[in-house]
Amino acid sequence: MLDLTKEFLQTLNERIDAGKDSEVRATLVELHATDIAEVIDRLDFDHASYVYRLLDNETKADVLIELDEEQRSDLLNAMTAEEIAEEVLENLDSDDAADVMGELPETKAEEVIGLLEDKEQASDIRDLLNYADGTAGALMAKELVKVHGEWTVTRAIREIRRQADELHQVYTVYVVDAEDRLTGRLSLKHLLLAAESTRSRISELQSQGDIVTILAEEPEEKATMLMERYDLVALPVVDEAGCLLGRITIDDAVDAIIEDAERDYQLASGISEDVESSDSVWTLTRARLPWLLIGLVGGLGGAYVIGAFNIHENAQMALFIPLIAAMGGNVGVQSAAIVVQGLAASNLATGNILGRLSKELGVGLINGLICSILILGSSMVLGFGTALSITVSIALLCVIVFAALFGTFVPLMLDRYKIDPALATGPFITTVNDIIGLMIYFAVGGAVAGFLV
Amino acid sequence: MLDLTKEFLQTLNERIDAGKDSEVRATLVELHATDIAEVIDRLDFDHASYVYRLLDNETKADVLIELDEEQRSDLLNAMTAEEIAEEVLENLDSDDAADVMGELPETKAEEVIGLLEDKEQASDIRDLLNYADGTAGALMAKELVKVHGEWTVTRAIREIRRQADELHQVYTVYVVDAEDRLTGRLSLKHLLLAAESTRSRISELQSQGDIVTILAEEPEEKATMLMERYDLVALPVVDEAGCLLGRITIDDAVDAIIEDAERDYQLASGISEDVESSDSVWTLTRARLPWLLIGLVGGLGGAYVIGAFNIHENAQMALFIPLIAAMGGNVGVQSAAIVVQGLAASNLATGNILGRLSKELGVGLINGLICSILILGSSMVLGFGTALSITVSIALLCVIVFAALFGTFVPLMLDRYKIDPALATGPFITTVNDIIGLMIYFAVGGAVAGFLV
Repeated sequence: MLDLTKEFLQTLNERIDAGKDSEVRATLVELHATDIAEVIDRLDFDHASYVYRLLDNETKADVLIELDEEQRSDLLNAMTAEEIAEEVLENLDSDDAADVMGELPETKAEEVIGLLEDKEQASDIRDLLNYADGTAGALMAKELVKVHGEWTVTRAIREIRRQADELHQVYTVYVVDAEDRLTGRLSLKHLLLAAESTRSRISELQSQGDIVTILAEEPEEKATMLMERYDLVALPVVDEAGCLLGRITIDDAVDAIIEDAERDYQLASGISEDVESSDSVWTLTRARLPWLLIGLVGGLGGAYVIGAFNIHENAQMALFIPLIAAMGGNVGVQSAAIVVQGLAASNLATGNILGRLSKELGVGLINGLICSILILGSSMVLGFGTALSITVSIALLCVIVFAALFGTFVPLMLDRYKIDPALATGPFITTVNDIIGLMIYFAVGGAVAGFLV
Repeated sequence: MLDLTKEFLQTLNERIDAGKDSEVRATLVELHATDIAEVIDRLDFDHASYVYRLLDNETKADVLIELDEEQRSDLLNAMTAEEIAEEVLENLDSDDAADVMGELPETKAEEVIGLLEDKEQASDIRDLLNYADGTAGALMAKELVKVHGEWTVTRAIREIRRQADELHQVYTVYVVDAEDRLTGRLSLKHLLLAAESTRSRISELQSQGDIVTILAEEPEEKATMLMERYDLVALPVVDEAGCLLGRITIDDAVDAIIEDAERDYQLASGISEDVESSDSVWTLTRARLPWLLIGLVGGLGGAYVIGAFNIHENAQMALFIPLIAAMGGNVGVQSAAIVVQGLAASNLATGNILGRLSKELGVGLINGLICSILILGSSMVLGFGTALSITVSIALLCVIVFAALFGTFVPLMLDRYKIDPALATGPFITTVNDIIGLMIYFAVGGAVAGFLV
């Protein structure tokens, strides 16, 4: 892997400034496209554009799809439609080509696609652009190798060679019937092993039993889940009739899995856009502000709750406000996280909300009792007084149980109404639990005071 | 995919109770091993064991590695060493076999491995058991297909057929030199395409340029990162001399990626063990208690901070305690999350701590100013009084800037000292920020009061 040091970049920039093309080429020629993209991402646009033009067309295509979106968009804007079609698109798989076209203005994309010599590729790209983001169809590529069940091994091998020549990588050979319906698959291993008995039919060699497929309209998450669950390197995408439309490869599924995980993690941490530490101060600020504003409103709400209570005459009640607020938030986030992960791993049926809530009630009661006994003992020992200690202890139990149930209920509800349950973890749950927790605390405080008087 | 309904399980249990073996087999025969494992996980041990014994040996092996650890351990305990060796281990790849042996008591594992007929497999498993958890070596399997560079295509194809026959799936063919050092790889596609020119040497067909490899001792995270970065379906593992030891396949890498993401998400949410929503109430309680106890101690600390301030004479200060505490926690978690993700994606060099902190200072100042102006305006309008409004506004700015810097600094430090930075997000950052935030708030309150008097 490339170690991208300051010295490396400095040397490269000097060579570009001096116009030493062959030296620049020599620096890059041994690198993987992903690494070249990382280098180009670190250069200013003029240098980036200079380096990019030195690459051969196949590398150009591979590098382009690995670039940051901004740098890619700038480079594409500087190219004519002919250049994009000939130098880039011809060398891209249909899924990557569709992704790049999706980032161009619609009229320019149409112009580029119209210029493609390979009319089949053009129609493949147009086709893929029709699938909505986040569906299996949008993640698939049209390139695949398929053979007919009634073919002989000899004919199939000839056809596979012809088709494979145009592909970057062959994962599986799909077997279809006369109506192009998927009937099975053929591993290259079986083909290699069988290549001697060349007169047998493909249908005798193909996999037995059901083959895992997905409909093009189904969500991307289902595709990645199936590939993970059944250890697939490629997942065939079919239409309602069972006809083969394309296939999703594991590298794209891995990217989708990682993106999803990062998004969930960011949502749980109160970050609302997909950001990286290398983004600009402004992007980072904007991604973080929305949840802070929610926290601000929540804090004002908290002030009202406290204000509604006669805090001046019971100022010692203030001492445990942070404890109550923090514990409510913590428990709520824990509960929500377990639900969100259960839903993501789909080992949790939303139907069974009552069962989930009663389990959470158990967890909340045990944790609540432990914490409330501990706080009762320690605040008595530390001299916070009987009334306050009892108040905090009772309130804490109530807050923990409430937060556990609320933290479980909200993501389950969101999921039922097709809203991303990950939205529920993080600041939202924390904020609501803060306010409700304070209400419980002061209500208990009032009751205990009345009781002790 | 199997839709595991209550009716399905009830029918199955009835058939088992009635001893209708052929019907039970018929229910399962069409299912994928992963689905059979899910069915068995839902049965009580007697029924599970009954069903398991009905499976053929190959399915037994495939199902065993997909079971929940508890159910697997119970089933293995009920089997003799001979049964485990013959029925299960013989049909497992070396990495899965080593994982299963790693779960057995050491003496039983040794007995089982000693019973294996295939001595090479036995030595492979012993070998794999030596790699520490979390290393690339522990994730790899020894099964692979390799050919020598000086072989002809004809000889290579013969050898590949022989070797492939013993493998579940062939990803790549590796090319080694006379000393077993990895020199390149050969895609099955190239081999298929080249199969006609059978007299050429393999060294003419193999991939050109550097091949991405990993040392067996390097961390698992590096392996998954390389596979994701370079879109690999298999990553060869080598020793210091460059000799081929084994290979990591993408399905195992995907499992590791998902496990890692789940762990980070749970740590950020204050859950300390790897739990699932289907775990017992007691497991769930235990996983959640540690962070709650930290929150409890933090809450007591907060009580002391407030107690040290003369809250009785300035009871209105209590109103904004929740706001200050919540905002400090939110900002700290946001900052820490961005660092943790940057470190995970390794696009963040720990060396550059100062650069990262100054960027975070910028983000904190902008967000802090926006929030503090908003709170100043709204609390004046809402009639909370000038002194209190000014206090909250100044304190909020200080708290946000401090929390941003602290949330950035802690994970960077943890990472530098080889502690998992993900530990820093969630309750730890929240708790510390709560206490420091309150200190800032009351210090500012004292200063503003002194100034206004």
